[in-house]
Amino acid sequence: MGKKLRFGVLGGGSWGTAIVKMLSENLDTVSWYMRSESAIEHLKNEGNNPNYLSSVEFNVSKLHLSNSIDTIVASSDILIFAIPSAFLESELRNLTISLSDKILFSAIKGIVPESGLIVGEHFHEQYQIPFKNIGVVTGPCHAEEVALERLSYLTIACADESKAELVADELKSHYIRTKISDDIIGTEYAAMLKNIYAIAAGIAHGLGYGDNFQSVLMSNAIREMKRFIDGVYKMKRNINNSAYLGDLLVTGYSTFSRNRMFGNMVGKGYTVKSAMMEMNMVAEGYYATKSAYLLNEKREKKSKMPIINAVYQILYQEKNPKKIFKKLTEKLD
Amino acid sequence: MGKKLRFGVLGGGSWGTAIVKMLSENLDTVSWYMRSESAIEHLKNEGNNPNYLSSVEFNVSKLHLSNSIDTIVASSDILIFAIPSAFLESELRNLTISLSDKILFSAIKGIVPESGLIVGEHFHEQYQIPFKNIGVVTGPCHAEEVALERLSYLTIACADESKAELVADELKSHYIRTKISDDIIGTEYAAMLKNIYAIAAGIAHGLGYGDNFQSVLMSNAIREMKRFIDGVYKMKRNINNSAYLGDLLVTGYSTFSRNRMFGNMVGKGYTVKSAMMEMNMVAEGYYATKSAYLLNEKREKKSKMPIINAVYQILYQEKNPKKIFKKLTEKLD
Repeated sequence: MGKKLRFGVLGGGSWGTAIVKMLSENLDTVSWYMRSESAIEHLKNEGNNPNYLSSVEFNVSKLHLSNSIDTIVASSDILIFAIPSAFLESELRNLTISLSDKILFSAIKGIVPESGLIVGEHFHEQYQIPFKNIGVVTGPCHAEEVALERLSYLTIACADESKAELVADELKSHYIRTKISDDIIGTEYAAMLKNIYAIAAGIAHGLGYGDNFQSVLMSNAIREMKRFIDGVYKMKRNINNSAYLGDLLVTGYSTFSRNRMFGNMVGKGYTVKSAMMEMNMVAEGYYATKSAYLLNEKREKKSKMPIINAVYQILYQEKNPKKIFKKLTEKLD
Repeated sequence: MGKKLRFGVLGGGSWGTAIVKMLSENLDTVSWYMRSESAIEHLKNEGNNPNYLSSVEFNVSKLHLSNSIDTIVASSDILIFAIPSAFLESELRNLTISLSDKILFSAIKGIVPESGLIVGEHFHEQYQIPFKNIGVVTGPCHAEEVALERLSYLTIACADESKAELVADELKSHYIRTKISDDIIGTEYAAMLKNIYAIAAGIAHGLGYGDNFQSVLMSNAIREMKRFIDGVYKMKRNINNSAYLGDLLVTGYSTFSRNRMFGNMVGKGYTVKSAMMEMNMVAEGYYATKSAYLLNEKREKKSKMPIINAVYQILYQEKNPKKIFKKLTEKLD
């Protein structure tokens, strides 16, 4: 890969903003697509994203900003996607140029609702991108702490580890450490599943369960996650590595997690619909729950996954959270 | 074990109080040793322990209270110890009757300073109690949540599982679920080591590290704990079970943990001595750190344990927490 590859980031939310900040520490130019023209104007004039992580000051001369996804894709070799999974497909449909010669990294935690696939698989199956050109950028990492330059660890996964290395090199800095991995399937499923467990943690909290139970729930969640991921794609992985357990913990123990907040409202008695309306958004774990449930249903040899099943029954079958969790507590240990 | 065995609890602190509460749900009589005569008087008159978990109302007619350890030991077949490890040996030295025909369960999380042993090993080596009569009661369980009757899970470990079963049966209730285990060594070391990791979490917080780092620290801590425990006694155990990972999390993520608080003060710049004086007590993880460090030093094949080593250097070698943690961050992933 002789010549310097050009990086583009897609998405103007907090995680996209954090990734552009990380890349700007190392690169002279970062291309950045966001939908909002007014945010782009503000960035150009004031040097910060008005909507997310507004305390981060960018060196604007390094940014190549556009609200045309075509423009940013055309001027990038490596694309890092940080668009919420629910909007990914509608954004991609605006593209008129091909992705086939690009290296695509997903920093999205979730399932593409249209295909029911995790993002890497979606790129592979719907856009015929070979797995060697697909990667994942995963935490444990709250974007807010990147803004504060608090030490954070990222895992960069790609079947082609040299590409993971390449992306890792441009993300790391005095406040970012990186680790590379070849487990693109496992890390991406972990990033998706943790949102379901964060919803479960929220429901438990909303129902009045305490810290003792929360720790038991997380201890069961990581074992369930291991069974699920091993069932999808068996390989040698230590589920207690940061990209799996760390990512579960940073989300499950975060009171700021939108998934946990959503679960909390459901636990407190909001209907699923009213909780979504109140939050004015759909938590990513909502889609993840259905996908994980259906994926397991289709399997010949099903994983034992009492937590995901409990969340599914509450979110999709209008079952009573209190009763379902009471039953769940008997299945945990 | 034909006849009904008599239970005695030793220790009037919050964990001892919680255990007496749990046993009182099932037993007609619980013997309870505590040092404070005035607390016993208060309990008899008012039905609650004035010093710990004072909201818990006891049925006093069930309690056989005494501030003579001999009296309580003499009238019990199964003893559950909930005396801080630092005071265990001085209490035991007051005993004039033999422990040899008793079943001893430790609910103590720590190392006996006089012997440098975990409590089970201490009973075995110093009092010649056979391992089949030694057990462990472990969490994840904050006593405060037992007082509130919030659902909690205990693991009861004994080499003789029938005795673990026997104790578990008397502890369980509508808010306590129990699991039995034959891993007395592993569960007890986990309960001890978690306090060191809670100190580490506190130091990190005191130094200004955030939630992203905390999750990485915990993810590394559970892997380090596994290496350590496997090094002490190798057997088939799932380190992600509640008694290991759950216990680590409930302590490491608790802002009420005295170990975490102690670490936090050290991270903020207190000397070890002044932090101890300020807290008016010695956090159990302080002793655990030294024991774990020395134990590993003595081993032919040492475990890689960067977190414990870092805490040891800060607490016992007066090294600068900021520098030591900076080095530590390079060893984590």
